[in-house]
Amino acid sequence: MAPGGFYLACLLLGCLGFLCVLFTTYWVQHWRGGFAWDDGLHMFNWHPVLMVSGMVVLYGAASLVYRLPQAWLGPRLPWKALHAALHLVAFVFAVVGLVAVFRYHSHSKVAHLYSLHSWLGLAAVILFACQWFLGFAVFLLPWAPLWLRSLLKPLHVFFGAAILALSMASVISGINEKLFFSLKNTTAPYQSLPSEAIFANSTGLLVVAFGMLVLYVLLASPWKRPEPGALADTQPLLCERE
Amino acid sequence: MAPGGFYLACLLLGCLGFLCVLFTTYWVQHWRGGFAWDDGLHMFNWHPVLMVSGMVVLYGAASLVYRLPQAWLGPRLPWKALHAALHLVAFVFAVVGLVAVFRYHSHSKVAHLYSLHSWLGLAAVILFACQWFLGFAVFLLPWAPLWLRSLLKPLHVFFGAAILALSMASVISGINEKLFFSLKNTTAPYQSLPSEAIFANSTGLLVVAFGMLVLYVLLASPWKRPEPGALADTQPLLCERE
Repeated sequence: MAPGGFYLACLLLGCLGFLCVLFTTYWVQHWRGGFAWDDGLHMFNWHPVLMVSGMVVLYGAASLVYRLPQAWLGPRLPWKALHAALHLVAFVFAVVGLVAVFRYHSHSKVAHLYSLHSWLGLAAVILFACQWFLGFAVFLLPWAPLWLRSLLKPLHVFFGAAILALSMASVISGINEKLFFSLKNTTAPYQSLPSEAIFANSTGLLVVAFGMLVLYVLLASPWKRPEPGALADTQPLLCERE
Repeated sequence: MAPGGFYLACLLLGCLGFLCVLFTTYWVQHWRGGFAWDDGLHMFNWHPVLMVSGMVVLYGAASLVYRLPQAWLGPRLPWKALHAALHLVAFVFAVVGLVAVFRYHSHSKVAHLYSLHSWLGLAAVILFACQWFLGFAVFLLPWAPLWLRSLLKPLHVFFGAAILALSMASVISGINEKLFFSLKNTTAPYQSLPSEAIFANSTGLLVVAFGMLVLYVLLASPWKRPEPGALADTQPLLCERE
């Protein structure tokens, strides 16, 4: 079963995803001085925008490709390719987002990778890289035996969802940390809940709402492709008929 | 299917859960001055220990009651009661953990509920309360019709997992925030990664590892009770035969 509620969920996902990116961008543009690629503080501002856009919004959209009813019938290759390509774009966003923060830290003599936020965020990106390469090797390339595909498919889905959950936790701790850095007692302290704090906290809640809706559609909703049997499910790329 | 790998996962879960509580307790005992119930800074120390113990470890254990092979056959009542009771204990831990931080804030003239950590953490506890009462009313009390139980069961499982994910994100942002508060430039700054920072960061990663293993066993593992049909699945409490 699909349509109806599914398209409503897609509309809601589209709105929430757009708002996640819009809110993050507006936050750093309006309150944190906007963007630059000069190794300075404004270069850091690419980090939250690219991580939210890549590791949450694009990642979430890429994860749900197989939930589209259009993907249920006909050749699988375009959907496999779209799933992998969107995730690859998400990964590139994440890597550029990491470059932004590493170069800012180096330039400003700030230590790398000391906070729990950075440990968890880096773990999420490394797991994402492993997941992508393993998925590419097992589900797209034609050499993996069927038993291996059947064995790895539920693990691939689980780790896909787990990486999104880790990304959400990283984003939450990152926004929280950035607000403690930026809203000092000398200006408007975080404790006094200035408009920036309310706005950025709300951005964090939007990210959580988007991620939870993705996980619902992915793991718990009834909008799934009817299983055509183990063989079709594990069909390698080179067997696809266009 | 169950045993073998399932009991290995249980052993790993037990070790990870024990280490989560042990590490959190050792952190605040060794580096943050230990415990007191006097509205001061040492009262705050109950907060991380009770939230990790309640909202992550006990909550995770309570969530997996139905995955025990012993729960697959025979009367359901003891398992339903155990599931609800363990979650209730977890909820009490969380409430006492919140009391500790609210009373410390009030005593120290620190504002309540301004950080994203606090917003998300409170949302997780409120959702947990709603989930518990709805579960009690629908799955334990005998009045809910079968169609409602069937409708709500997948939502109950999904929100159970979602609340655990929110709790993990809250714990991560909370540890991160506490380390930025405590490890100032005047002592050993967080940036220099003193032993407390490495220990507390590792505690955060332990919480993530425990939570992810719970979510795997709950959502993606093959260790599930064989479905005996919709009727038995939605059996109300008062129909149980002991």
